[in-house]
Amino acid sequence: MIVLLTNDDGIYAEGIQMLGEALLQDEEVELYIVAPDHERSATGHAITMHRPLRAEEARFFHNTELKGWAVNGTPSDCVKLAIEYLLPQKPDLVISGINRGANIGTDVLYSGTVSAAIEAIILGIPAMAVSLVLPFDESKHPDFRFAANFMLRTLRCICEHGLPPDTLLNINVPDKSRREIGGVAVTRLGLRHYRNTFQKRIDPRGKNYYWLAGELVDSSREEDGEDTDVAAVKKSYISVTPIQFDLTNYQLLEELQKIDWGI
Amino acid sequence: MIVLLTNDDGIYAEGIQMLGEALLQDEEVELYIVAPDHERSATGHAITMHRPLRAEEARFFHNTELKGWAVNGTPSDCVKLAIEYLLPQKPDLVISGINRGANIGTDVLYSGTVSAAIEAIILGIPAMAVSLVLPFDESKHPDFRFAANFMLRTLRCICEHGLPPDTLLNINVPDKSRREIGGVAVTRLGLRHYRNTFQKRIDPRGKNYYWLAGELVDSSREEDGEDTDVAAVKKSYISVTPIQFDLTNYQLLEELQKIDWGI
Repeated sequence: MIVLLTNDDGIYAEGIQMLGEALLQDEEVELYIVAPDHERSATGHAITMHRPLRAEEARFFHNTELKGWAVNGTPSDCVKLAIEYLLPQKPDLVISGINRGANIGTDVLYSGTVSAAIEAIILGIPAMAVSLVLPFDESKHPDFRFAANFMLRTLRCICEHGLPPDTLLNINVPDKSRREIGGVAVTRLGLRHYRNTFQKRIDPRGKNYYWLAGELVDSSREEDGEDTDVAAVKKSYISVTPIQFDLTNYQLLEELQKIDWGI
Repeated sequence: MIVLLTNDDGIYAEGIQMLGEALLQDEEVELYIVAPDHERSATGHAITMHRPLRAEEARFFHNTELKGWAVNGTPSDCVKLAIEYLLPQKPDLVISGINRGANIGTDVLYSGTVSAAIEAIILGIPAMAVSLVLPFDESKHPDFRFAANFMLRTLRCICEHGLPPDTLLNINVPDKSRREIGGVAVTRLGLRHYRNTFQKRIDPRGKNYYWLAGELVDSSREEDGEDTDVAAVKKSYISVTPIQFDLTNYQLLEELQKIDWGI
């Protein structure tokens, strides 16, 4: 089984390396890492059209069997380039992560981690995206081990059950001990609301500038439901959300067909 | 009616200016333009987190009534910043475009034009994205006039019918004369397939690099259906697709709930 591993935190991030080490424990896995050469968070589904890409070979974990490339592009670029040029054959599965920080609710639209997995399913390859949900107290160093081992088990589970080629699993694992985790919740995407999105500041020359900031508004509001990823991770569950890429609002098609567009 | 106009081709692109001029013909419209200071195509839903944004005032069309800002960020940044800081009050509608080139099928995931409109509906504001479908012969200078006038009529139509706040209309208008256009087709998103996505080249120092290229595979294949945006523009129709931002694959939720995740 050929697995392509990528992320948006960059190829030298701890999360992808911990996940790579865990997956190597499965002898049936032939693992390749193709990931950005530096952090590319919040790049959404950007692709690089106006400058060329380069792929530098990289080595990891003192494991000479493992092949990897650092690419000067976005997570989506990495998946495209890996599948088209760098890997000896098409992978059976693409995994993106482990991201440092949750990718839940509407925030998945901005997520490079999830976009890499969406790129895979556009190309017809099943995929998973995995993120570590950090606690509010960010002074604790994140511990990717439990999430990495969960992904190793999930990989075996997926091999058994199969995944449709046009769907990815978006997985968010709380950074907690096994004892504190409630279990696995299969969820739909919830909403994430922010307020005071920007801070307006004045530079040393007296001109305005704006920093994206934003406080998360408590999004476990009742109207958003208990079956969302946002609600699941708040209750210390591992959230698993099936994601597809057809944005069509089918419910509105019929209504729009009634309109006279004047043409 | 307050309308925010943005794009991804940059604030000084012809498409946004032609659309702005057309919308100003409606006396009920109070128009603001907030758009990137240079072309930001294929940025997907990227947002700028790691550097500050600046907004410079801009003037257009020799019309001193019109207010505009050029922002050194992505289309999504522009919408966020406009709504939070730059506009005197929340707009009633966001329009993104007119993009130079189609935004149809799976390509909408990469589109800065469509992402700006998605940002608007995330913030609860109805939106439209509009793109000009260019002919294969790119030597002809694109003519935005018909598309701009169509948007003016559609704006009035939308005022009358209303749009749900969580849906945008993705509109693609062929760059053809009124006579050649078949009419309006309400469509779902189709698929776009590419082959030979990258060209591999060798730089003057003997090292490999890769350019994103890609030939579009004829995507009017029967299995993809006649009711898609891809099929509609091929037949010289104006395509109108309702788009939402919930990527959950609801059909798979139940099946995934049966899996034993070992936790």
